[in-house]
This record gives sequence, structure tokens and C-alpha cells, in this order.
Amino acid sequence: MAPISPFAPKELPYLPAIEGVRFATAQAGIRYAGRTDLLLALFDPGTTVAGILTQSKTASAPVEWCRARLEHGMARALVVNSGNSNAFTGRRGRETVKLTAEAAAKGVDCLEADVYIASTGVIGEPLEAEKIARHLERMAGEAVPDGFEQAARAILTTDTYPKLATRQTEIDGVAVTINGFAKGAGMIAPDMATMLAFLFTDAAIEPAPLHELVVAAAANSFNAITIDGDTSTSDTLLLFATGGAAARGAPHIGLALDPRLENFKAALTDLMRDLALQVVKDGEGATKFVTVRVVGAESDRAAKTIANAIANSPLVKTAIAGEDPNWGRIVMAVGKAGEAADRDKLSIWLGDIQVAREGEIAPDYHEGVGAAYMRNAEIGITVDVGVGQGAATVYTCDLTAGYISINADYRS
Amino acid sequence: MAPISPFAPKELPYLPAIEGVRFATAQAGIRYAGRTDLLLALFDPGTTVAGILTQSKTASAPVEWCRARLEHGMARALVVNSGNSNAFTGRRGRETVKLTAEAAAKGVDCLEADVYIASTGVIGEPLEAEKIARHLERMAGEAVPDGFEQAARAILTTDTYPKLATRQTEIDGVAVTINGFAKGAGMIAPDMATMLAFLFTDAAIEPAPLHELVVAAAANSFNAITIDGDTSTSDTLLLFATGGAAARGAPHIGLALDPRLENFKAALTDLMRDLALQVVKDGEGATKFVTVRVVGAESDRAAKTIANAIANSPLVKTAIAGEDPNWGRIVMAVGKAGEAADRDKLSIWLGDIQVAREGEIAPDYHEGVGAAYMRNAEIGITVDVGVGQGAATVYTCDLTAGYISINADYRS
Repeated sequence: MAPISPFAPKELPYLPAIEGVRFATAQAGIRYAGRTDLLLALFDPGTTVAGILTQSKTASAPVEWCRARLEHGMARALVVNSGNSNAFTGRRGRETVKLTAEAAAKGVDCLEADVYIASTGVIGEPLEAEKIARHLERMAGEAVPDGFEQAARAILTTDTYPKLATRQTEIDGVAVTINGFAKGAGMIAPDMATMLAFLFTDAAIEPAPLHELVVAAAANSFNAITIDGDTSTSDTLLLFATGGAAARGAPHIGLALDPRLENFKAALTDLMRDLALQVVKDGEGATKFVTVRVVGAESDRAAKTIANAIANSPLVKTAIAGEDPNWGRIVMAVGKAGEAADRDKLSIWLGDIQVAREGEIAPDYHEGVGAAYMRNAEIGITVDVGVGQGAATVYTCDLTAGYISINADYRS
Repeated sequence: MAPISPFAPKELPYLPAIEGVRFATAQAGIRYAGRTDLLLALFDPGTTVAGILTQSKTASAPVEWCRARLEHGMARALVVNSGNSNAFTGRRGRETVKLTAEAAAKGVDCLEADVYIASTGVIGEPLEAEKIARHLERMAGEAVPDGFEQAARAILTTDTYPKLATRQTEIDGVAVTINGFAKGAGMIAPDMATMLAFLFTDAAIEPAPLHELVVAAAANSFNAITIDGDTSTSDTLLLFATGGAAARGAPHIGLALDPRLENFKAALTDLMRDLALQVVKDGEGATKFVTVRVVGAESDRAAKTIANAIANSPLVKTAIAGEDPNWGRIVMAVGKAGEAADRDKLSIWLGDIQVAREGEIAPDYHEGVGAAYMRNAEIGITVDVGVGQGAATVYTCDLTAGYISINADYRS
């Protein structure tokens, strides 16, 4: 059992019920004993859904199922299990997904096409559909609106705390709520660390604009975090919109450009960023939370490539773990990113301390000051690569012996 | 002090003298006490040179100097120091290189343009030219032909053993020798781990074909190894050809396609592969040597991208450190590489043990067999991605707590 992340929240936020969403959890004994590992979420008729799925070329069977279902963008049920990712399980994996959807559709009394499925856990081991299916009808009968924390707990794997967030906002003056929970936190494997995130709102938004909203909000949240640069076969983010607020006068939204969405967009981005940063702060073995900001790049895309090169560099990440203000490794990472950078204009800051200026160590920099800064739990690295106006921010954690021991321990 | 790599050779090979090459080393006290840290190599007039330099966008001043000198491809001297890489040192760094070249040219009585320079060690700290320059004239007078091991030792940083190799071959029936030494072994920083390799032959080969030979030989040697995916600002590989064998009748080679080079090419590739694998086997904290072979890819280039994704994945590397036959992480790494792969045709072998077949766990695979295999010091991973004929092999090591402690330790 890994120690709890130093960034674990002292208190979990309370997530209010959302009209049109109910949850049930169960101990299905898929891999873990003595804890819940199965979640069923039920949605009222008319609920829309949009999502972002892993770009892995070896995506899991549940991811492929969701990708096909998202075409129509309507949802009545979500089934999530932890302990087995049903990834790389071939024909049997597809059958398990199909049987799970059939059982959920029967229990919920909806179409199979309105059932979404996500699995997280070990790869390559067959997942028996029956282990899940036999609970679903009973769970459908037990589902309650007030179950966000229990839902968040059922999907955890190597996480050391559940990740929850809630925001209140408005559309056209009518109050709407957005809730979400997520899990991390390395990437794949033994006790598993796929990223899953599920978001829920009572706003009434058609699938197409809902998709645009979630993609835009992901750019600076879930698509701006990295633990180890590895990509799970199972990463899944889904946003469900029940339309429950329509009964209180919320408008039906058909266009992402609708100006009435302004506050909703900001709240959604803020909530997704909150959850994404909670995922990073629970990165396997993490002792430091790191914000990498790159400015002066040829384009925003180039800036993000450079920021990711810094954030994923094992040498940068181990230096941070060792509280070493080793800016030479940052220079190295900028160089290996392959994007344009002017070595002789490069400037680097640790927090507000300028360490390097125009390609040389800053004349007034003293290593003792940098070393003191590195003792902080939250570290900021800013790099100006001196060639243009592109900027990007990426969030990550350090690379510690704890990461090694979590990931090198034998699975049995 | 890190423990010596378990792959350290029991005995170092003896490298015979090469006509036209002499060495001297010195204790310049650049960073290390009580050991040599400065190397001067002298070459007879007419010596040609070709090389491969880091692709980093923030390459060091010595790398830029060499890149410019390689245009004419003639060499009379090589100066290498360890302890300070003279990287990211701005204008002062360029001045140090220029002053070093001037001093070497004076000591050796040659043109500055015929002096090559390499530095390895900490980044971003000014390197005083005088610390090096004041030794060069004396060293030029002391140089001896029989100094390969001493030369190899002077350039080490975090390496736990010197890397030496020698091959005897022939060109047109005349015996020629190729010697080489290298250093590794993580990448950058504190006690530093740039890759430097210097090769020497008495063959008589023009600069242009020499360049073609070294690039071709690097593809399956130095360009097929990875420790942590990080790229140094200082990586330098130089091959010097003195032409000393011409006095014994070796032909002057003007074309890389010359059929008389067949055996020489094979010997050069073999020697470079030998040195490259020695570098990997001394990877920081390495306890396992890993060969990753990818077949069935869309192209050789795609196969290499996938092989590198596997070899650089922290999750794959920590699983190997933990002797865990965790092939799910290999699937993950194939998926994240972004190259075409057919999940349902994917096959994976650990050594000769087929673990996965056509997208599922192999029916006759037992994890106990895989776990027993993982206890070997040398691990082979083969993946057939099932879409074409492309193939590539990449060599790497595992990722251990030793890597973390070497790289997280504070520099002071």
C-alpha cells in the first residue's frame, strides 16, 4: 500500500444531487476484496452525452464501445468497474462489453445503445461479464441521487484519495450544477492507473455542442497534465447532460457558440481543471506538484511540445524529487523537444527567481536561492525560448523512488 | 558513488596502437579531484574525420565548433574534458572553445580549424579556458601511441567502467585496425552523462565517404540505444582515419560504395554496436539489459518509433526492474506510439515465450514461466504489430530506484 499523497485534500467536497442522475455501487469482487468495484449510473430519458477517449492504437473494448455509442450522443446508463480493464482481451473482451450492455439495458429498461461502459484495472486478463451483469438489475432498483462520493470511490485503483469537484453556474439566469469525479494516476497496469473522469450537469445541451464544450475545456485541463508520458488503453472522459434544469426554465442549447453559455463554459473548464490537477497531485509516488509554463515559442502547439518535453523528462523529474535547482536539465529538455528555440535568448525562472537570462546563468542568481525554492511542495518552471509568441502550460509531478516501487512491485 | 554496473566487463580489452594517433591525459582539476579529466589526441597530417552530433536545439558550444569544422573533415587534434560540458554558457562558452582551439593549435603546431573539442559534465557553469589551455603544450610533448585505456578513463563522468573496443579487418587485403572508446550513460547533468564516442582507424578514407560509413553504422548502434529518452546537449561521435595503413599498401578510398570496404563496414558497425551496448549496460542504475524487437510494422521507421515507445516507457522499464512479466504495459506502449498496429493481430514474446497471440493472452502461456524468464539479466521483448513488414531493434535498460537516487541527489 503506497503512502497517501501529501496533496490529499483534508476534506472532500460535498456534491449536491443533480436532477436526472442516480447512482448505485456494489462489491463485485472483480479483483479487490472488501471494497466497492462496480458503479452503475442511471440517467433520465433525454440525457445527452459527449466524451473524449484515449488516442491509443490499442484501445480497450469498452473504449471502442463508447466511441461507437457517442455517435448518437444519448445516454441512459453508465457501467464502470475497477480491477480489470478488459483491455487486450480480443473477441472475449468485446463479448463481455456486449453482455454487460445487454444486462444494463434490461435492468434499466433502455436501449443497449444508450449504455456506456468503462473498465480500469489489469490489462490482458479475461473479464467475465457475469461478474458484473448479475448485479446490475438489483443496482438499478437501489440507485439514489445522492451518491457521488460512493461512486467516486468505486472506480479507484492506485489512487490514494477520491477526486471530486462541483460548480454552480447559470444559463440564461437559471441555476445549473456541474459535478464530476475522476481517477488517475500513473497510467496502466498492476493495480492500474488509467484516467477516468465522469461529469454530470442538469443543463440541457444537444450532443454536438456538448462535444465542442468538453473538447475546448479539456485543452487546458485533462489534456495539459502528464504523470509519466504513458498513455492508457482505457482513458475515458464523459460529460452527461440530463436537461433536468429545463423544468426550471433553462433553455435547450443547440449551438456551442450560444452566448448564454459563457458562464457555463468557464465553470466547466474550472471544474475540469480542478479534477485534472487532483489527478496529477495523486500521481504515483508524487511529492511535488509542478507547473511548467513555456512562452516565446513559435506557436502554442510548439510551446506545448516543449512544455511536455520538460514535464516528461526523467532527468528533470528526478531533479525536482531531489530538490535540485538543476536548470541544465531544463535546457536539455528544451533542446530535445525538436521545436525552434534560440539557445542564446533562452531565459528560465524557478518560481519568480530568474535562473538563466539570454542563454547564460543570470548574473545575480545564487544557487542557494534556487535550492531553497525547490523545497516547496509546489514548483513553477517558466521558460522563454525566445523565438515567438506561442505559450502553453502543462502540469506534472516529480519522479520518485515511490513511483518505482509502486510500478516495479510484482503483480501477485 | 553508485555501485558498479552488474554488466561491467571482468577484463578490459587491450587496444593496440594505431599508426598516426597519440594520446596524452592530465589532471586539470576541472571538477574532479584525484583523477584525469583532460584528454589530448594528436593525429598525423592527412588524417580525415567524420562525425555525428546531437540534434538538440540547445547544443553546446563545443558541438557547434565541431559541426563547423566537420565541413572540411580534416583533423590534427582532439581535446576532451570531463566535469564541465561548457553547455548553455553563452558568449563565454564560445570564447572558451576558441581559446582552447588556439592553445591546442599552438601546442600541436597545426591550424585551429583542425582541432576538435568535446566537453562533458555539468551544464550552465562557465568553463575557464585557462584550466585546459595551460596543459596542452606540455601534453602535446608527452603524447604516446599506446594510451587508449588512459584516454577512455579521462572522459568518464557517471560511468562505472570505461568502454573500449577494437576490431581487426582489411581493405583490399591490407590489415587495418579500428579502435574506439565511449562514455555514457544517463544523459545530462550533475555528474553528467552525455554520450561521447571516439573512433580511430589507420585506413585511408576521404571525409565524404567516411561520413557515409559512420552514419550507416550508427543506425543500428548508437542510434538504436536509449537510457531514458533524454537527449544531451553535447552528444558527440567522431571517427578519425589517419591513413597510416597506406604506407603498407592500403588504398585511398574516395567512395563509400567502393566494394573493397565490405569487411571494413561490417567491422565498423560491429565495433560501434559493441560500444553502444556497453553504454546501455552502464545506464544509470541499470540492473537489466533489454533488447526490444518490433516486427510487422508499416515501415522500418514506424517499427523504430514503436520500439522506442516501449524502450522509453517508464511503466515498461519499472516492470522489468521488478521482474514482472507485465505484457499489458507493452500493449500500452505500442498503443501510445501512434503508429499503425492491429490490436487484434498483436503478438508478444518474452525471450522465446509467446505471451500474447492475435490480440489475446496466448492460451498456453502461464505467468510463472514469464516470471521465471524475467529473472534473467538480459531480457528480450519481441512484438509483432501485425500490419506490414517493417522491423527495428532498440536496446535499453531498466528503470530502478538506483536511477532515481543517482539523478535526484543534490549536486553539491
